[in-house]
This record gives sequence, structure tokens and C-alpha cells, in this order.
Amino acid sequence: MIRVTVWNENIHEKTNPKVSEVYPNGIHVAIKEGIAGDSFEIRTATLDQPEHGLTEDVLQHTDVLIWWGHKAHDRVADEIVNRVYSRVLQGMGLIVLHSGHFSKIFKKLMGTTCDLKWREAGEKERIWAVNPAHPIAEGVGQYIEIENEEMYGEHFDIPAPDELVFISWFAGGEVFRSGCTYYRGQGKIFYFRPGHETYPTYHHKDVLRVIANAVKWAAPRHGAKPVYGNSQPLEDIKGK
Amino acid sequence: MIRVTVWNENIHEKTNPKVSEVYPNGIHVAIKEGIAGDSFEIRTATLDQPEHGLTEDVLQHTDVLIWWGHKAHDRVADEIVNRVYSRVLQGMGLIVLHSGHFSKIFKKLMGTTCDLKWREAGEKERIWAVNPAHPIAEGVGQYIEIENEEMYGEHFDIPAPDELVFISWFAGGEVFRSGCTYYRGQGKIFYFRPGHETYPTYHHKDVLRVIANAVKWAAPRHGAKPVYGNSQPLEDIKGK
Amino acid sequence: MIRVTVWNENIHEKTNPKVSEVYPNGIHVAIKEGIAGDSFEIRTATLDQPEHGLTEDVLQHTDVLIWWGHKAHDRVADEIVNRVYSRVLQGMGLIVLHSGHFSKIFKKLMGTTCDLKWREAGEKERIWAVNPAHPIAEGVGQYIEIENEEMYGEHFDIPAPDELVFISWFAGGEVFRSGCTYYRGQGKIFYFRPGHETYPTYHHKDVLRVIANAVKWAAPRHGAKPVYGNSQPLEDIKGK
Amino acid sequence: MIRVTVWNENIHEKTNPKVSEVYPNGIHVAIKEGIAGDSFEIRTATLDQPEHGLTEDVLQHTDVLIWWGHKAHDRVADEIVNRVYSRVLQGMGLIVLHSGHFSKIFKKLMGTTCDLKWREAGEKERIWAVNPAHPIAEGVGQYIEIENEEMYGEHFDIPAPDELVFISWFAGGEVFRSGCTYYRGQGKIFYFRPGHETYPTYHHKDVLRVIANAVKWAAPRHGAKPVYGNSQPLEDIKGK
Repeated sequence: MIRVTVWNENIHEKTNPKVSEVYPNGIHVAIKEGIAGDSFEIRTATLDQPEHGLTEDVLQHTDVLIWWGHKAHDRVADEIVNRVYSRVLQGMGLIVLHSGHFSKIFKKLMGTTCDLKWREAGEKERIWAVNPAHPIAEGVGQYIEIENEEMYGEHFDIPAPDELVFISWFAGGEVFRSGCTYYRGQGKIFYFRPGHETYPTYHHKDVLRVIANAVKWAAPRHGAKPVYGNSQPLEDIKGK
Repeated sequence: MIRVTVWNENIHEKTNPKVSEVYPNGIHVAIKEGIAGDSFEIRTATLDQPEHGLTEDVLQHTDVLIWWGHKAHDRVADEIVNRVYSRVLQGMGLIVLHSGHFSKIFKKLMGTTCDLKWREAGEKERIWAVNPAHPIAEGVGQYIEIENEEMYGEHFDIPAPDELVFISWFAGGEVFRSGCTYYRGQGKIFYFRPGHETYPTYHHKDVLRVIANAVKWAAPRHGAKPVYGNSQPLEDIKGK
Repeated sequence: MIRVTVWNENIHEKTNPKVSEVYPNGIHVAIKEGIAGDSFEIRTATLDQPEHGLTEDVLQHTDVLIWWGHKAHDRVADEIVNRVYSRVLQGMGLIVLHSGHFSKIFKKLMGTTCDLKWREAGEKERIWAVNPAHPIAEGVGQYIEIENEEMYGEHFDIPAPDELVFISWFAGGEVFRSGCTYYRGQGKIFYFRPGHETYPTYHHKDVLRVIANAVKWAAPRHGAKPVYGNSQPLEDIKGK
Repeated sequence: MIRVTVWNENIHEKTNPKVSEVYPNGIHVAIKEGIAGDSFEIRTATLDQPEHGLTEDVLQHTDVLIWWGHKAHDRVADEIVNRVYSRVLQGMGLIVLHSGHFSKIFKKLMGTTCDLKWREAGEKERIWAVNPAHPIAEGVGQYIEIENEEMYGEHFDIPAPDELVFISWFAGGEVFRSGCTYYRGQGKIFYFRPGHETYPTYHHKDVLRVIANAVKWAAPRHGAKPVYGNSQPLEDIKGK
């Protein structure tokens, strides 16, 4: 049983009727319902909750955190960002969606600006699997087509991903590295591009499948236990 | 249920009493028994069998193939090598152990000489986990210690691994990239260094655990299905 | 002074008037003239020459080999392929262009099928720099636009590149990893996608600049000298 | 001509006679003199200078910054760290030495704790080249031996390097990824392990050669110019 927390800033849904029409209960609930299955125990958290819903207790009981934010990155308290950061480095999985590329937590983990090119014109996106054997691409065809999406284009200012799983094509002429995995500390991170708030992207079954696959991939293992700090020699050091 | 075939050239065991003492039923049987568990269905195959035990039928029903060879790489028929190669590219996992670095199948998949430095002096090896969150390192401490092993040293002439999981330290002064993952086609490959035939390495519980972890990691997914060849446009190409 | 040999199968140029119109002296000569500069000493070689123009002597005096082939991959003698292969592993740079993805030498170095999707419809290609700081992208804008090209699409069955420098967008709806670097042995390899024989791609100044950049990047260094084989201990092995 | 600035916190040299004996003019001057050559214009900067010697003007005229710090990471002003960070992302090369693994600038660029294991016992280190064709290994033998060094051991909590060039062996039983390259933004970073202040490591000719090689590798290119932000379509988006 993988314990998942879906975090959403949940602002567009309350202020933009176009968004609330698509996601009446919020993007977080759409994702929660969309990936629900036997192997996940899922809760949600939002910006307006105390500690943004990400208390020490919630994070200690979260195996994988999913993150959607856009308008209010700067309203996420640094203390909570640092808490999430520590948990990722200790092994919690993190899935960052779409405009979350500019979230404090993603930029802190990447070490770069995470800047990109964008355009809101409801154009076609086609997400090609370039590592078809990767567990995150499981069950997906050779590409995922989304009729209307916001464009994100290169250059995407990220570290070269440990594994590049998907590349997007956009009708307007751009490409984008849209499915990227990273190991950081004991944690695993997956960035997945699609999901502008005015389009029903999180009702698209293949988008949801990729997110569910990523949850399974990012769930922590009881891995090798690193030990840090001052350390006695394991061998005799001759002459010392 | 993951279907595993353990392949062994099985020559040292019949010609060298020191080896048959350590592995009375052969290295293949030691590995088979050592990784046996609920989620694996394991068979073995050896060089002296018809088609080296790797018939089309056997390979079609193998999810992960484990390979141990040393003395007789050149006696493995090219036809069988090509058969294994095709299966790997179609998605079968492959785990290459120790002296298998010079097998035809590994060299063909790597595209390099796979040469290295070696010494048979029964010295201490300490295998450090450098990617402790990787599923192949699951349940292993910060290192695995092997009291007596053959030394393999850098430079190891392989492509830079997709993921470097382990690095070995040797008492005689060398280091070695000893746990390396690769994606090739639809298949996943793991090279794991330890396992000289005269030492009881395949009775070491952490070595066996790494092999079992690797089997789970390398087992094929029903991934994105690539399509190759001449292809109609998905979009109107203006003016054409 | 970097010594470059441009190899071309040089068949289309003699059999297809559309091609000889674009490349009256052959693709090899267009590339030779297009990248000529102070720091290169360039010769050419073609399939129809003795030993395909790639004698031991020529290869021993070649720092970087550029390869264009398409129709006649199977007419390149295995002996010559093995000779080029050895030289690459010893440090000669190799730049494989366009349909060279299916050449014997590239497949042997990659270890995969190198298969892909393709379409000959003269559509627009836009080659985006995704690693803009890479020396191979030096002096190129954010993308290179080619008005008419053959499409190559994913999935491209190659090992994940050591560095991904360019991704192509095609009007017909596909993407492609079109600038890929690899280290193999002591040698460096760059695969660069564009260059169908019926289009004037090798007269495009940015395409030529990328090839020239790649020559500089791939030129051999007097690097660390690996030593292979049986090897004495550098340290006392206690108790031995 | 590559413009290099060598930065040193320069505290041990003033407070520990053992250090001032080895580096009477400071580590920064030893490195400056040690890598001096025709193609470098080198200045130094230290913590106690105004703005730590890293004014906007100095950084704007620095192609590659070399960083040595240990005792006083927390005394480097955040404003200066942010200034260096911005310059790296814009293309300035950065070479981080030894205990600089815990500097604010390295941790900010890596996104991880950069923690490790250590021991100060003056033991032997042997730095093996595992990517012998890499320009940073140019002219180095198969390994660099340092008679007395501080040990740094795995797990080293860094992102998997874009290229792993060196791995260290220590007499006391540990290994360490000691030569690591990273691309971040438009900049290139090289972490190089050796250089404890009480040992004459920066008088070792091969250590200096690696640093000089790294300066050449990290020097900025006039690369592809990325463009960020809101962006018009390059193609007609049908029906929009």
C-alpha cells in the first residue's frame, strides 16, 4: 500500500469559472479519483489549510507527494518547502506536475531556474515515449495525444534528467522534455508536463496512468542505508 | 510471477575440484536456490545442452536471463547469441555476472571491448552502494564485504552506465564500477561484478539479494509499444 | 590541426539526377568544403575506392571520421567496419550523419537496432538546442530550421545518449533525438540527424557549423592511458 | 585567453602553522601558480576582501571560478552566493575543490545535502580515471597517487554526475566519486575531491593538471542562446 498525498494550490478552481467547470472539486480531487486503485491510499492537501496541509505528521505518513501549483508559488511558506525538501532527500517520492516547474520545492531540488517558453493557445500536444521500456511508460501507446494544451517549449532550464521518458511535440512548432526522472538523496522525483488548469487533462486516462505509474516508481525502497560523517578506517592504514 | 532462466557454462565445476567443492551442483543451481522465492519461477540452462538450453521456446518463456560464463565464451554459438540478443531488445531482462563481462552477448549489447584489469589473489572486496535509493540496492547495508574475491579493476571499457549502483574497493589498490544498469531496446541489463568460481560468493546472502533485486528490476513491463518504419503524417503538412 | 576524413557511399549522386543537382561533386565534397577552415585538414573517401578508401594508413592518420551512407550499408566490408570500430575504440572521433543510423559501424557501436520511423515528404524540421551550453551547439541560435527534410521519428532505438544536445520537431507531428553524443572506449561519437540526399541540407550554414563543432569536440585527446589484463597488486594484500 | 579567478577562504593558512608551512601564500596562490600558462589570465579572491573579492565586476570578467572553502562556509554572504549562482547559470564555469562540497554555492547548485563520510588520517588516495577519453583526464596516467590525504567516502549525497571522470580508492577501505561534471543552466561545473589543507596536494603536478584541464573544459562557449517566457507560435495552429 503506497500512501499518496496530492497537493494543490487550489486557487484557479475558486476564482475562474472555466476551471471550476472542468474541475468542480479541484485538480487534487480529480487526480485523487483518477489514480485511485487497490495499491494506493490517497489523501489531499491544499495551500489554504494550516501548514498548507503538509504537517510533519502528514509528510511522515506520505510515501509519494504529488504537486500542482501555479499562481501562488511565493505563498508557500519556506518552512514547509524545507520540510518537503528534507522528506524527499530522506526517501519520499515527489511528482511535480506542469506549472509546478516554477515551485520553490522543484527549483530547490533542481538547482536551476527551471525557466521555459510558454504559450496559452489551446494547441495540440503529442507526448512521445522515448524510453518505452521505462516503468513510467507502462501501458501507454507510442504517444499520448492531448487535443488542447498550453505549450511549454525548450530550452527548459533543468539539469539533464537521469532518465528522459517523454518528449512533447506542439502544433505551434516547439518540443519539450516532458517526462523527466531524477534521483535526489534517497528520494525519486518525476516531472510531468501536461495539466493546464483550463483543460480537462487530468481526466485523460493516459495522463492519469502515467501519474499512477510514476507513483509506483517513486515509492521509497528500504534501500542501502548511507552513513555520513567522521568514520573509522575499515582497514589498517599502514604506518599510521 | 517472474520467469527466470539461470545460464551457466558449467565447466569449472566439472574440471576443477576446488570449484565443485564450493558449487557441487554448479553455480547455476547455487543461484537458483539462493534467489528462490514466491515471486520467481526459475529454471537453469547450460552450455552442454542442445542449443545451450536456450531454445526459442525457453527464451520466449523467460522474463529475465542470468548469465555466468568464463572459459568458453567462444563456444557459445553465434546463432544462440543472436537469439538472446533479439529477446533482450524485445524486452527480456539480462543479468550478466562477473566474467560474463567478456561474453559475446554482453560485448554485442555494449558495443565496446568490455576489457578490464584483473588479479586472482583472493583479496578483500568491499562493494559500496553509491545509489542507495535504487531498487537494486534494496535491503543492502551501506556496503557488501566479500572476504576473498578475484580483483577486477578500472579502466572497465564499457559505455557509461545509465545508472551506477555499486563501486568496488579492493585491498590491492583498485576500484571498479561493479553494479551497472543499461536500457537496450525494450530490455534492461544489469552487470554485477562479484562471483569468481573458486569462492563461495554465490552463497553470500547480500550478493544473492542484489541478484534477486535485479531480477525484479529487469523484468519486462508492458511498456509503450514503439512502431518503426515508413509512417504517414499525423498532421497536415502545409503545402504538401 | 585536426585530420578529418569524410566518408560517403556516393551512390545517389551518380544515379539520381535530383541528388547530383544538389550535390554535383557528392555529399562528401559538400561537407568537406562546408566545414573547411584553418584548424582542419580534410580528405574524403568513398565506397567504390579500394578498401572503401579507408586503408589502415588513412585511418591511422584520421582524427575524426564523418560517415554518410544509406543505400549500400551491406556493401561495406566487415573487415573495414571492424577496422573503423577498432580505431574508434582507440580514440578516433566518429560523426554519423542521417541515414548512417543504419550503418554497420553505428549499430555495432550502439549495440541496438538503431531503428526509427521515417517519411519522405519534404516537410519542415526545426532542430532545438536542449543543451545550449554544449560545445557542439556553439554559435547556433535557439533552433535550426530546415525547410524541407525527410522525417525521422521516435522511437529511435538507441542507448540513451551520454548527452542529448538537439531534439527535432517535424511538421507532420513527430519528434526525434537528433543530436546525441556517446563515449565508446577512448573514442567519442556524435550522431546528427539531418541530411537527406535530395535536399540541400549540407549547404545550410548552421548544419555545417554543428558538424564542424562536433569535429572539434570529437577530436582525440591524449587522455589517461588505460591498462588492461593481469595486474600486480599496488598494495600489500594482508595475509597473502 | 581564459579569465580565471581562484577563490579561497584563506583562514587555515593564517591560523594553522602546519598549513602555512605547506601553503605560505595560501592555497589560492599555490593553485594560481600551479596552473599558470599561456592560455590563462588568473587572479585570486579571498573571504576577507570586500564582497569576498567577488564583486559584480570581477565576476563579469571571470570565465571560470575555482572555489576552495572549509571552515567558514556560513560566513560567505548569501548575496555573494546568489551572484555567483546567477553567473554560473549564465555560463561561468565553476570548479569546486575538496571541502567546497559543503559550500553554499555547491549545495545550491546540486539541490542535495552533499554530505559524505570523512576521516583525517593522512592515508593513501589513488584517483582512478574511469573516463580516460574525457578532456579533464588529458595527460594523466591511469591513476593519480597521493601519499597522504584526508579520506572522503561514499555515500556522497550528490545528483548522479553528468559524467563521472574519476573514482578514488582509499587505504582505509572506502571509495569516492572524486571527479564529477555537471551542466547547470549555461554553466559547467566540475567537482574535484583532493586537497586537504595540511597536505601538499596542490603542489602535485597531476592534481594541478586536472584543475587546468577542468578550467579549459568549463570555459564558456558562445552557445545556443535560449529564449524564455511567453512566445508566439512558429507555425499556424490550425483552427485557432
